Amino acid sequence: MDIENLRWWGWGTLDKSYSLEGRPDFWPTLQEWLGLPDGALQEETAPKALEDISLPPSRFEGPTLASLEDLVDGDSVFADKRTRVEHAYGKSYRDLIRLRAGRIRTPPDAVVYPNHEAEIGALLAWAAERDVAIVPFGGGSSVVGGVEPPGDGRPTLTLDLARLDRVLSVDRESHTARIQAGATGPEIEAQLNRHGFTLGHFPQSFEFSTLGGWIATRAAGQTSIGYGKIEHMTQAVRVVTPVGPIETKDVPATAAGPSVRDMMVGSEGIYGVITEATMCIRPKPDVQDYRGILFRGLEDGVVAFRDLMQSDSLRPSIIRLSDAPETTAFAVLAREHSGLRRWIDRAAEAYLRVRGYSLTGSTALMLLGFDGGSHWIPQQWSLASDICRDHGGLLVGRSVGQSWKRERFAQPYLRDTLLSHGVLVDTLETATNWSDLMSLYQTVVGTLKDAITANGGGPGYVMTHVSHAYPQGASLYSTYLGQQIPTSDPLVKQAQWEGIKQATTDAILDAGGTLSHHHAVGRDHARWLEQEIGETGVRALRSLKRSLDPDGTTNPGILLLE
Amino acid sequence: MDIENLRWWGWGTLDKSYSLEGRPDFWPTLQEWLGLPDGALQEETAPKALEDISLPPSRFEGPTLASLEDLVDGDSVFADKRTRVEHAYGKSYRDLIRLRAGRIRTPPDAVVYPNHEAEIGALLAWAAERDVAIVPFGGGSSVVGGVEPPGDGRPTLTLDLARLDRVLSVDRESHTARIQAGATGPEIEAQLNRHGFTLGHFPQSFEFSTLGGWIATRAAGQTSIGYGKIEHMTQAVRVVTPVGPIETKDVPATAAGPSVRDMMVGSEGIYGVITEATMCIRPKPDVQDYRGILFRGLEDGVVAFRDLMQSDSLRPSIIRLSDAPETTAFAVLAREHSGLRRWIDRAAEAYLRVRGYSLTGSTALMLLGFDGGSHWIPQQWSLASDICRDHGGLLVGRSVGQSWKRERFAQPYLRDTLLSHGVLVDTLETATNWSDLMSLYQTVVGTLKDAITANGGGPGYVMTHVSHAYPQGASLYSTYLGQQIPTSDPLVKQAQWEGIKQATTDAILDAGGTLSHHHAVGRDHARWLEQEIGETGVRALRSLKRSLDPDGTTNPGILLLE
Repeated sequence: MDIENLRWWGWGTLDKSYSLEGRPDFWPTLQEWLGLPDGALQEETAPKALEDISLPPSRFEGPTLASLEDLVDGDSVFADKRTRVEHAYGKSYRDLIRLRAGRIRTPPDAVVYPNHEAEIGALLAWAAERDVAIVPFGGGSSVVGGVEPPGDGRPTLTLDLARLDRVLSVDRESHTARIQAGATGPEIEAQLNRHGFTLGHFPQSFEFSTLGGWIATRAAGQTSIGYGKIEHMTQAVRVVTPVGPIETKDVPATAAGPSVRDMMVGSEGIYGVITEATMCIRPKPDVQDYRGILFRGLEDGVVAFRDLMQSDSLRPSIIRLSDAPETTAFAVLAREHSGLRRWIDRAAEAYLRVRGYSLTGSTALMLLGFDGGSHWIPQQWSLASDICRDHGGLLVGRSVGQSWKRERFAQPYLRDTLLSHGVLVDTLETATNWSDLMSLYQTVVGTLKDAITANGGGPGYVMTHVSHAYPQGASLYSTYLGQQIPTSDPLVKQAQWEGIKQATTDAILDAGGTLSHHHAVGRDHARWLEQEIGETGVRALRSLKRSLDPDGTTNPGILLLE
Repeated sequence: MDIENLRWWGWGTLDKSYSLEGRPDFWPTLQEWLGLPDGALQEETAPKALEDISLPPSRFEGPTLASLEDLVDGDSVFADKRTRVEHAYGKSYRDLIRLRAGRIRTPPDAVVYPNHEAEIGALLAWAAERDVAIVPFGGGSSVVGGVEPPGDGRPTLTLDLARLDRVLSVDRESHTARIQAGATGPEIEAQLNRHGFTLGHFPQSFEFSTLGGWIATRAAGQTSIGYGKIEHMTQAVRVVTPVGPIETKDVPATAAGPSVRDMMVGSEGIYGVITEATMCIRPKPDVQDYRGILFRGLEDGVVAFRDLMQSDSLRPSIIRLSDAPETTAFAVLAREHSGLRRWIDRAAEAYLRVRGYSLTGSTALMLLGFDGGSHWIPQQWSLASDICRDHGGLLVGRSVGQSWKRERFAQPYLRDTLLSHGVLVDTLETATNWSDLMSLYQTVVGTLKDAITANGGGPGYVMTHVSHAYPQGASLYSTYLGQQIPTSDPLVKQAQWEGIKQATTDAILDAGGTLSHHHAVGRDHARWLEQEIGETGVRALRSLKRSLDPDGTTNPGILLLE
């Protein structure tokens, strides 16, 4: 990855941004939804320039720095301002608020890029001897504070795994690949595609996030229904812990005790550094056939979704069901002549209305897709269409799927644009069983709306989709927008966001939803962990921490409260 | 379960045994295969009578016993000889040798049958205070020594969960059920079937083993390909540990830290007592269509098996591929006019020979089956048949599937018959990736044959099947037979078995196979655990033990070496 080109104060690379060209309704609609005064959105606030930001000086100098440099090959240790800033935070709303304001109080004292796994053990020992905290860093796209130095007074060394970016081997017969933890989504897919395979893991952060980060956070890709969450496709892991390496057995299943692999998956760097994994891979599908389906209301769509997931004959790779506000946003905010709008242009809107669908009313849009051989997909569509039609589903063709695919990684770029215009925007996600899903949905949406208003965000706009599903239930993913409190003080903006976070997380846990389905715990959710897994559960995680990292070296303050 | 009727010295209930009626070739063939002198098998040795067995006296008496009885409702504590003998061992070959000889040195001092979960916490506290070991006991069908009291000098209280046998609730919408840990296979299926559901977990021990035991040992049912191993169908668990209860969240997936659930699944009672679980269930299938397919050799069958598992369009529920010796055994030892024999009778054997199949030669028999809706199964068969035919598969119809289903739980009864006739018989299992499967197979079979001979078992007969498969690999399950050393000393017979166990387990681990795919570690495999999961892996398991069971109360000596 061209690290020179990274947008340190926001998402992705500087050559890309979310284009609002051809979206004439975007700003006026948003203005109306968020209750902003006329012209409020025309003002654009730029992030503070890097040269105007001052960092606390690095505590690694002289012989300390030299001893660190001695542990790694070549040019691998960096303590310059830009590198430290780029590794100071993840990419949560709170992080972006702080980065844009240049409020960077606890950057790492240095960043090291290990060249081989052997260097990592040495770095952990070096850190433990000197009471230095180690922060493992993949793509840095955490939205829960997972890569933020502890700020507990100890110096911090961030360990960026970018150089461990290779697919080490592909077992064509067993459909597995050994992959290094620092490989990003595109690096993994490019190397696997050459062998005719895919990992099938496409989170929204795909372009920047890494295998190690996915495993550390129990990530889910957009096609998790077909390919599994990362924990379902991780066959074995290697983790360098401060007390020695863990290498779980590379076999498809075992009964040799509780799964040590599953103690490492989701461990968020607190037990050590994930260095590589053996992943289940699949032949790259001949066809990916993704289409849109309209339902008269969310409830109809949810029942169809559940039936699709519980069918014994269907193997969809992706299903996403947007509620009415999200469907409306697609319809109104989308680029003209693309996706849903293109379809609306073609169909007579009156025809839709007569049949009971209204894209700016209660209609819910489902994206349904199959990956696989061309012989098999038509028959899957025939079965799936029957199920959808039973619940009032109206198939609206492939253009919706195509435009979704085209923009599937673009949304984080939009966030930067919105932040520049004083819009509060964040996402949250949870999961529950089907029987509780609609009531959890009502809780999440209601609480978010109330919390936005209560925290000075105006009326707010909340849009939600159901995705990442199982026969037993599904996740809910909400995007919410509101008015940022108009101030240059990042602490005020942060407090606004924290008020919303507190209210919605409390409400989710009270309603039986999980603390996170695929964003992990990090720093932001740590105070709710005990409510999620219980006192004895926390005790179990702590005992592993004490045993594998007795000096508290790796990722302190993440996952477990200090 | 009618506990009066249990065969304490062997498998199952006294009203059932493996019938050799209509199997005229059974004994003569076995005699030839095992190299036994004429007439050797006509002698039958009965197990020692219960009244002739003497046990060490129970150490729970007087006020100790009274304080124990105070903790549980009604008539729930038993220290009579029969109950203690029935809970002294599991059902491994080594266990049966000792039971038949009446050599029972470390029976539990008493057995308690808790009536509700609340009693279990009190029992654990009672035991910790008095330095008493607790052995959680489900169906007692462990084949790895998993329910054997420690014999470390401490008194032992076995905690039999038989009374916690209910399906507490069924969530029809989410396809989950809360089930108590002491429920046996038939108890679970009967209760779920009333709601139109099945758990789909049918291990060979199905009639006697329990949900808690399955979860504690990471069990696999015969239809694990379709329904998953137990760890894939366990959505949430409740475990009463000595330091408090663990209740994992009842959601289909989460990213809230490493999975505490997966620290409990496979924990073999060392962290506490599993009391209930929320399980993924499925609608009871309309049709179960299981058929036989012949391959000219095991290699052809393995490639077909792999292709079936890696197809994007197939969802088989069961595939078992027998090697030539097991196929021969089916053909020769099976009841006349049933299963494979019936099919052979009907087909011209000459026809088979001309086409290159020989049931007493190198031919491998596959059992392939689909569970599901009647609309879908014919199309699955059409795809699957094409794959099998590509590798020389010859479909031999449903009678093989029917006879397999009829006898699917019978084999353990046969073991008792064989033991009565001085035949050494045991099974072992492992798993690996497809690319290593054939070489692991050769290693297992070769080592077993050599080890039987080297340990005084004669030429031996080893038969193996491939089953419990994944897109990445499969398990191997071998049954081996030999001559028991003719002695009444159980220690000599035990040493013979241990010699074979040692050699084959070493060989499996050296060849990259897992220590166990679905029988667990128990006492018998504990000394290989470090080789399987590494020093740091063992350290992790030990830290959980110290944290959750600080006094070492529950199942000492199981899984982790003392």
